[in-house]
Amino acid sequence: MDLLIKGATIITLDGENEVLKGDILIENGKISEISQSIELSKEKMFATKVINAENLIALPGFINAHTHCGQTILRSYADDLPLYEWLFEKIFPAEEKLTKEIVYYSSLLGIAEMLKCGTTMFFDMYFHEDMTAKAALETGIKAVLSRGLQTDERQQQRLDETKELIYNYSSDKIKVFFGPHSVYTCSYELLEKVAELSEEFNTGIMIHLSESEDEVNQCYEKYDMSPVKLCQKAGLFTRPCIAAHCVYVDDEDIEILAENGVTAVYNPTSNLKLGNGFAPVFNLIKSGVNVAIGTDSAASNNNLNILEEIHIAALLEKGMYRLPEILKAQEVLKMATVNAAMAADIHNTGRLKKGFSADIVLIKANDLNMLPCYNTISNIVYSSNPSNVYATIVDGEILYMDGRLLTIDEEALIKEIKSIEKILEESIE
Amino acid sequence: MDLLIKGATIITLDGENEVLKGDILIENGKISEISQSIELSKEKMFATKVINAENLIALPGFINAHTHCGQTILRSYADDLPLYEWLFEKIFPAEEKLTKEIVYYSSLLGIAEMLKCGTTMFFDMYFHEDMTAKAALETGIKAVLSRGLQTDERQQQRLDETKELIYNYSSDKIKVFFGPHSVYTCSYELLEKVAELSEEFNTGIMIHLSESEDEVNQCYEKYDMSPVKLCQKAGLFTRPCIAAHCVYVDDEDIEILAENGVTAVYNPTSNLKLGNGFAPVFNLIKSGVNVAIGTDSAASNNNLNILEEIHIAALLEKGMYRLPEILKAQEVLKMATVNAAMAADIHNTGRLKKGFSADIVLIKANDLNMLPCYNTISNIVYSSNPSNVYATIVDGEILYMDGRLLTIDEEALIKEIKSIEKILEESIE
Repeated sequence: MDLLIKGATIITLDGENEVLKGDILIENGKISEISQSIELSKEKMFATKVINAENLIALPGFINAHTHCGQTILRSYADDLPLYEWLFEKIFPAEEKLTKEIVYYSSLLGIAEMLKCGTTMFFDMYFHEDMTAKAALETGIKAVLSRGLQTDERQQQRLDETKELIYNYSSDKIKVFFGPHSVYTCSYELLEKVAELSEEFNTGIMIHLSESEDEVNQCYEKYDMSPVKLCQKAGLFTRPCIAAHCVYVDDEDIEILAENGVTAVYNPTSNLKLGNGFAPVFNLIKSGVNVAIGTDSAASNNNLNILEEIHIAALLEKGMYRLPEILKAQEVLKMATVNAAMAADIHNTGRLKKGFSADIVLIKANDLNMLPCYNTISNIVYSSNPSNVYATIVDGEILYMDGRLLTIDEEALIKEIKSIEKILEESIE
Repeated sequence: MDLLIKGATIITLDGENEVLKGDILIENGKISEISQSIELSKEKMFATKVINAENLIALPGFINAHTHCGQTILRSYADDLPLYEWLFEKIFPAEEKLTKEIVYYSSLLGIAEMLKCGTTMFFDMYFHEDMTAKAALETGIKAVLSRGLQTDERQQQRLDETKELIYNYSSDKIKVFFGPHSVYTCSYELLEKVAELSEEFNTGIMIHLSESEDEVNQCYEKYDMSPVKLCQKAGLFTRPCIAAHCVYVDDEDIEILAENGVTAVYNPTSNLKLGNGFAPVFNLIKSGVNVAIGTDSAASNNNLNILEEIHIAALLEKGMYRLPEILKAQEVLKMATVNAAMAADIHNTGRLKKGFSADIVLIKANDLNMLPCYNTISNIVYSSNPSNVYATIVDGEILYMDGRLLTIDEEALIKEIKSIEKILEESIE
């Protein structure tokens, strides 16, 4: 059914990013018109669902540019621990227990949370990624997925699984990228291989890059160059490439990222929570790097709330540089929409614009924490929280509205998650 | 009516802070029993409202230790601006327009938002503070209030207004503190006077302290000592004293704060947003300073969401020190409950304990972003958001439940706020 959003405050994020009061007409999943007032014929009106948006803000759906949905099931499983203990004593042993079925429900849980936060697309890297693809397809959310790759006896199997993902799931809603985990878990040869395969399959690449100081130091020891240079040398940057974290990048690294059109994903919460520190986001942007934003997973965040991630992103830079005027609200909003779409090499989402996919979030403008409103974008970035999300729409289909998930059986999901929680709690001690 | 909370997951924050599954009985506004199972007689049951809390977490209501409710009306009015421009060109001129009536509705708005976030008490400093007191009284929230003091031709008037506040509003729910704004807006003589008056009226003091580097530099120029030392010299620390911000405090300052039992209020969002930077919170705690937590106002945050403030507080320290294991979830939770009660010199709130006031927040444990739950405190600190708050209870009275404010007419408030917004928008340009 077509959709008419009437009387909304619209943040298009297109061009000069005007905020206008008006209507959005959605036909066949695409935005066919945005204007101050759209009048439909009686027949057309009959086949169109109208949303009265007098008290709603419409903006492009959020894109979470880095997460691991399969880890949602490990939320609150291991916190406040030194990095090594967290990873080797808690997360890795727990992951051994994650079956295909568990990753499926974990993905469903992550997607459900993201939809409630207004997220319409996410980038993901994990194992049993076919289960994440299945969950995404069933729920209607868009996704850029990758099977995490690393060098060990199962290296080839993982590459094969990536190819299967590409064959089985590539579609309008799902893109598959190659996902070399990092320079410290992948051999140089694997990185080169990934660059080749990405060319062969005409797809992109996502990788964790320069996340910790240890990673950078080890890379210098082994290769006598930074992780960024190593990836460049291996050819990863000849492809559309999205690099998560980029905390420890120097000026030369930043220049390489900018020149090669690599997207850096800012994960402020995870960088802080795991003790990695502060990414030089303002420098990245100033140098022309495309910066997107991601929550990372519920095991290291511990939520998938992109609204909070946007807020923290804006705040941190101001504090780091001690300049309240840098990284303005609108720039951060673009990181979670326009810039992320660019990262996915997808040219019909991330803005509200005629011809674009109707990937839209509607936010309640009259909730008390959103009043008064002298500046709509400020209120979205600095004041909103998930309780203000009214609806999440992907390709014109309403996936979440007024507290209800429309493509997920919430009660059944809760039951499954609780039963998995019990199993994991008992089996891992 | 008495209240029985049945089958909750209870975080008492009392002593060893066990998390237990059980019941809380509230009689005459006080917690009369906490145990695994409370059975009431039929007659007693008849006079008791029972909340089925099988899927709820009960913990002490949050205490927001620093805000300016009267500024809620300036939310989104001035963002992303250099500090001087923000303050002198935007906030100060706007404040000229804030009548008693506006401060009343602004306070009501702030209180409404705080109740929705599970806040049961707040510390506030502003002008027309009698209007904030009126709003607090009407809504049932607890408050520690102060009329902001500074040195100019109206200095005496402000002191008189403080005394009026003390006479008119001091009660079980409302405490009045003296509120010298800061060392840069108050003369040394005024600070001394405040110390005397606070002794005379047997009350506490709240002040902004060492918030910016400029403040500290100016204080050294004028007095040849740090703001902390100046306050000590003026006698402020002989009284229960709560100092907001404490961003630029050196080791000697920290020792003074610790020795004198001064409470430092951490305002991470505001410190970042205004470009002031990072308070040395871990050092403060390690040195024995009592640290509470506050949102500051909607003009510099721009929300009063204490859940987000707790989350950001925990994250920042880990990032700053690059140690994921410092400032653990439970410590941060105590900052927003136990420690803040201590700051207010109130000894019957901030914990769930027999004989304490029934100031309680109930959080929905089965919301998808709160699942799974291997660690209840982690989920509160790292994963929760205002949509998870089920009920806010003060002195056994339910002030917010299931999306509804029970002591505030939300529709009427929205109307008032929108009309004030229009007036302010037109009058200040």
